[in-house]
Amino acid sequence: MQPKVGIIMGSDSDLPVMQEAAKVLDDFDISYELTVVSAHRTPKRVQEYAEKATDKGIEVIIAGAGGAAHLPGMTAAHTSLPVIGVPIKTSKLSGLDSLYSIVQMPGGAPVATVGINGAQNAGLLAVQMLGIADKDIRAEFEAYKDRLNERVKDTASELEELGYEEYLKENPQN
Amino acid sequence: MQPKVGIIMGSDSDLPVMQEAAKVLDDFDISYELTVVSAHRTPKRVQEYAEKATDKGIEVIIAGAGGAAHLPGMTAAHTSLPVIGVPIKTSKLSGLDSLYSIVQMPGGAPVATVGINGAQNAGLLAVQMLGIADKDIRAEFEAYKDRLNERVKDTASELEELGYEEYLKENPQN
Amino acid sequence: MQPKVGIIMGSDSDLPVMQEAAKVLDDFDISYELTVVSAHRTPKRVQEYAEKATDKGIEVIIAGAGGAAHLPGMTAAHTSLPVIGVPIKTSKLSGLDSLYSIVQMPGGAPVATVGINGAQNAGLLAVQMLGIADKDIRAEFEAYKDRLNERVKDTASELEELGYEEYLKENPQN
Amino acid sequence: MQPKVGIIMGSDSDLPVMQEAAKVLDDFDISYELTVVSAHRTPKRVQEYAEKATDKGIEVIIAGAGGAAHLPGMTAAHTSLPVIGVPIKTSKLSGLDSLYSIVQMPGGAPVATVGINGAQNAGLLAVQMLGIADKDIRAEFEAYKDRLNERVKDTASELEELGYEEYLKENPQN
Amino acid sequence: MQPKVGIIMGSDSDLPVMQEAAKVLDDFDISYELTVVSAHRTPKRVQEYAEKATDKGIEVIIAGAGGAAHLPGMTAAHTSLPVIGVPIKTSKLSGLDSLYSIVQMPGGAPVATVGINGAQNAGLLAVQMLGIADKDIRAEFEAYKDRLNERVKDTASELEELGYEEYLKENPQN
Amino acid sequence: MQPKVGIIMGSDSDLPVMQEAAKVLDDFDISYELTVVSAHRTPKRVQEYAEKATDKGIEVIIAGAGGAAHLPGMTAAHTSLPVIGVPIKTSKLSGLDSLYSIVQMPGGAPVATVGINGAQNAGLLAVQMLGIADKDIRAEFEAYKDRLNERVKDTASELEELGYEEYLKENPQN
Amino acid sequence: MQPKVGIIMGSDSDLPVMQEAAKVLDDFDISYELTVVSAHRTPKRVQEYAEKATDKGIEVIIAGAGGAAHLPGMTAAHTSLPVIGVPIKTSKLSGLDSLYSIVQMPGGAPVATVGINGAQNAGLLAVQMLGIADKDIRAEFEAYKDRLNERVKDTASELEELGYEEYLKENPQN
Amino acid sequence: MQPKVGIIMGSDSDLPVMQEAAKVLDDFDISYELTVVSAHRTPKRVQEYAEKATDKGIEVIIAGAGGAAHLPGMTAAHTSLPVIGVPIKTSKLSGLDSLYSIVQMPGGAPVATVGINGAQNAGLLAVQMLGIADKDIRAEFEAYKDRLNERVKDTASELEELGYEEYLKENPQN
Repeated sequence: MQPKVGIIMGSDSDLPVMQEAAKVLDDFDISYELTVVSAHRTPKRVQEYAEKATDKGIEVIIAGAGGAAHLPGMTAAHTSLPVIGVPIKTSKLSGLDSLYSIVQMPGGAPVATVGINGAQNAGLLAVQMLGIADKDIRAEFEAYKDRLNERVKDTASELEELGYEEYLKENPQN
Repeated sequence: MQPKVGIIMGSDSDLPVMQEAAKVLDDFDISYELTVVSAHRTPKRVQEYAEKATDKGIEVIIAGAGGAAHLPGMTAAHTSLPVIGVPIKTSKLSGLDSLYSIVQMPGGAPVATVGINGAQNAGLLAVQMLGIADKDIRAEFEAYKDRLNERVKDTASELEELGYEEYLKENPQN
Repeated sequence: MQPKVGIIMGSDSDLPVMQEAAKVLDDFDISYELTVVSAHRTPKRVQEYAEKATDKGIEVIIAGAGGAAHLPGMTAAHTSLPVIGVPIKTSKLSGLDSLYSIVQMPGGAPVATVGINGAQNAGLLAVQMLGIADKDIRAEFEAYKDRLNERVKDTASELEELGYEEYLKENPQN
Repeated sequence: MQPKVGIIMGSDSDLPVMQEAAKVLDDFDISYELTVVSAHRTPKRVQEYAEKATDKGIEVIIAGAGGAAHLPGMTAAHTSLPVIGVPIKTSKLSGLDSLYSIVQMPGGAPVATVGINGAQNAGLLAVQMLGIADKDIRAEFEAYKDRLNERVKDTASELEELGYEEYLKENPQN
Repeated sequence: MQPKVGIIMGSDSDLPVMQEAAKVLDDFDISYELTVVSAHRTPKRVQEYAEKATDKGIEVIIAGAGGAAHLPGMTAAHTSLPVIGVPIKTSKLSGLDSLYSIVQMPGGAPVATVGINGAQNAGLLAVQMLGIADKDIRAEFEAYKDRLNERVKDTASELEELGYEEYLKENPQN
Repeated sequence: MQPKVGIIMGSDSDLPVMQEAAKVLDDFDISYELTVVSAHRTPKRVQEYAEKATDKGIEVIIAGAGGAAHLPGMTAAHTSLPVIGVPIKTSKLSGLDSLYSIVQMPGGAPVATVGINGAQNAGLLAVQMLGIADKDIRAEFEAYKDRLNERVKDTASELEELGYEEYLKENPQN
Repeated sequence: MQPKVGIIMGSDSDLPVMQEAAKVLDDFDISYELTVVSAHRTPKRVQEYAEKATDKGIEVIIAGAGGAAHLPGMTAAHTSLPVIGVPIKTSKLSGLDSLYSIVQMPGGAPVATVGINGAQNAGLLAVQMLGIADKDIRAEFEAYKDRLNERVKDTASELEELGYEEYLKENPQN
Repeated sequence: MQPKVGIIMGSDSDLPVMQEAAKVLDDFDISYELTVVSAHRTPKRVQEYAEKATDKGIEVIIAGAGGAAHLPGMTAAHTSLPVIGVPIKTSKLSGLDSLYSIVQMPGGAPVATVGINGAQNAGLLAVQMLGIADKDIRAEFEAYKDRLNERVKDTASELEELGYEEYLKENPQN
């Protein structure tokens, strides 16, 4: 099956974060491909990846990177597809370097940036974008939002019923 | 004509920035509507706006706000459409407050954040998203990118030919 | 007994911090209710909660949230009661995102912000506010301040008497 | 008439900002007094002011200061009344120093902090606090919120009608 | 023996850091007293402490505090003695809040600020200040500096001789 | 007359700020010398200056610098005299670079840091330090503090009498 | 004459800053070429430029860019020549975004970063690098440093002679 | 064999980071020396080291330091060789203090700054600089880049083949 979404990241060390995007797409039954493309170690691969993406049927690219995070922006430079950028948290500047490197793009080359380590939201944003062309996907996204809403209400009910002390005993937060 | 994009902002003081998004859509001949919705002064209007947007045929919402900027996130909370957030530069914290308030959304409610005052890019990102469903729009976006590319090359040629001193005389940068 | 204070938070993961506000109110024998309301996953519940609060006799709302923390500000948008905001520390930006999202409210919709993870102070501030209408509560707050004062003096005396080396042995600080 | 609110600031250079709090109280017909108290140049005056405030009938204190802004916190240390802190914008660190010095109070001595230069919101917060004991004040605050709401809707209507280009000509934003 | 230096801190939780100042003074055989004074929980004690310090023969005060750290500045407000401020590292803002609250004092009330958790340097700075009146102390400080210099050179020699791999084995850095 | 205080700065562009330190010493009738020493352009001059300072009778050195501000720390490295550091505000990072470069000194080489552009406070801190050896100077510092205190009270009286609107007309704050 | 240094920038708006690098090379009589290459608008041009640079005899590349500044890092990705990065000051985040985007490169692709707007230093660093292969250039750099040193000493002499008040009159600093 | 590169650091506690520079030079078979030089505890040693470096045949100096990190800049002040600065991560400000202290050098004294803890990149940058005079070294650097490129592609192939879940099982990321 042709992938609808391409998920790329600068290094396999980003995978524990970036897999969250893949899991969202799995949940929504949306086909995707996932690989490593390094803006700095494989710069030509960025161009190749971006240029071939349309041919493969990809409609949205999700790119995660950390530090001087150039992968999302460079991918955006090489494609007309919307690119979602995930700033990866770093051990030195907590991902502020990643965030600034991704979000502060100059006019002409936008990157749809989500929060630091926000790969789950990147997946959901891709779903929303695909929902523009496919109303079934949008309907599923609405159902997903309803489930989230229900889950919060259930939590609230349980908390109200038990009181916070009992609740914390039964639902220890780490 | 039904609007494809909704552009909203927290205050009319954001209009000088946010009009850049409108201008992009004008250039691409994409219909839009533009208005003021304040998350804090008209909270119910956020919900109404977000809920009616789909009925009107809107496919993407662009929301700009500054400071404790809740409009993009709250709009995202009330709709299944993709929401693009524009952090407006503030006089106190330079828009860092706006950026953090918009981009750091929790899992489940993404906002596609562009750079501080990045309304032009917000418009372009909306175009890219609409390009998922409409290949003509995507083709026009590609043409736009080509024009940008040409313009940089022309600048480069002129600068190489004139030398930087002459170039600066003829093209004073403020 | 009717609650005087409403304590809400964006997620049950905020409970280990937010329970400190509840403990303060327990100590001052002030009735309260405590629940989860998510600005982003249950946006209508924010409005409902805020609108019903006055009917229930609630006089002050304490709202804690992290990241793009919209709960305190959106609650303030929907009520005329004073709202105290608690910025929850986050793993990525240490709660600076939460702080900016809560404190930088635009003119017209104040949130009384306390320090990052300052739920205890949120509880005490609620006590002080209730003290405006109830001089017994104010008197109890004064007594509380006196006890704090005494405790510091006792610590000082013990430290002066033992010397710092002995003191640290008997009172190991983690 | 006895003042209900005390407005103090570290220096008369804070007055152009802090007068916004006074104007709000004027609008709500709430009596107040306004003066200069410097935590660092008149430290005893802080204590005197705080201690006498209750006798004068003051129910809320609004304190503004910039830089290493100790006035709000030290006032809070000397009184049981709720203290609202206004971080004044500084020319060096944009008021981030003021904000941190005011909001990060230790457990036991809360300061209800508003945004940088947020004196208008400080005034409104004082109104909300007084509304706990005086339902007429609360009702007036509700009316104020309704007017804000209307004003935003009027702005929105005008903008929708005129379109952004015409609107900006008629309502130039500086 | 009369104390020459007063070491104070906002809480006994600051003691593990602040003891470094005491140890320096022990090494230089300079008498000192050490206690807890909380600007926010014992505000009058700040004034008393500062005012009595001169009578006791204290020439320099070292004050450590964290968060909205008002102790050094308030002590400086109440005395003509030089005050050295130690910003204590905090779990939320890493001590940036402490640093800004201590160093950004307004004209007229200086605090001699050292680095975050820099209690050792606070002790050494007190020694240098006392050296203005006592040339023996200055001579001892010079000897101390010479010893530091030697120690670095010894480290360098060992490292050059062993090579870095061997050196790290023999001197594991945690 | 032998100078008691040495005032140095990295560049004559720092002079408009650093002259405030000189003015304070003029007011207190304390002799000083003032010159330019660049850590980066005249590194040997730092050493020479620092080493000769003691011979000239200098007791305190005030050093101002901006950006990667090494002058205060390097002066401290070369002398046993107390060194006061003034972080100069920069056009790029507002003096945060200067502040961090000056205050975060490693153990063994303290710099008594004042606020950004805090040259006046640097002068006053030098006065306080000299007061350790000269009780007349300390007495004059106390008198100075009393005058500051009076001036604030006069301002307060005028403001209370006139009301803020009249006061601002007569004392326009820029 | 073959260029030894390539100076590139992301936009001609960077030219007023970047010309300082060119001026340094002019002063040292080192041949260079200067042009515009945009990482985001002309991504292929980055690769072409970097790949051809060696053939042209270029030994060092100086690249300036602002915001999400990818040009220096992407140039480094495409060449084995040393790349010097100049973070351009931005109107929103003061160049902190530029700095982080340039300096925080991952292992394997270094960029020799200078200060914000530090184009003059970029030129000097290029001179120093070329001095590795050409001892005449190194000798000229030493002479340059000597001249800087003399200039500071002359400034110091004039300031010492005139006193700061007279000096400021004759040399007004803006 | 004469060293080509000098690696220095402010303290042996920087060695675990700085050894990465040495390892790179080992891999490229480039001779170096490595030692400790403290700008603040052995200031004369900085001058001596810098001045002797040229005589020893050193062509590039790599200097690492943390906090108020003056070693790279002061070394640059004392030599005409290019100096590479490595900001060491600190426990308080995460190395932001180190970064600002190193990168923000004034005009006339550049430091080629790499990322926080970027000692590996410092080594690689030294290799690139030496490649200006020695084309064999440049060729080896190109080969190194090719190997990096291959390694990323191998990772990508493995990941694409296994899928992310299997890949993470076989290649657990800590």
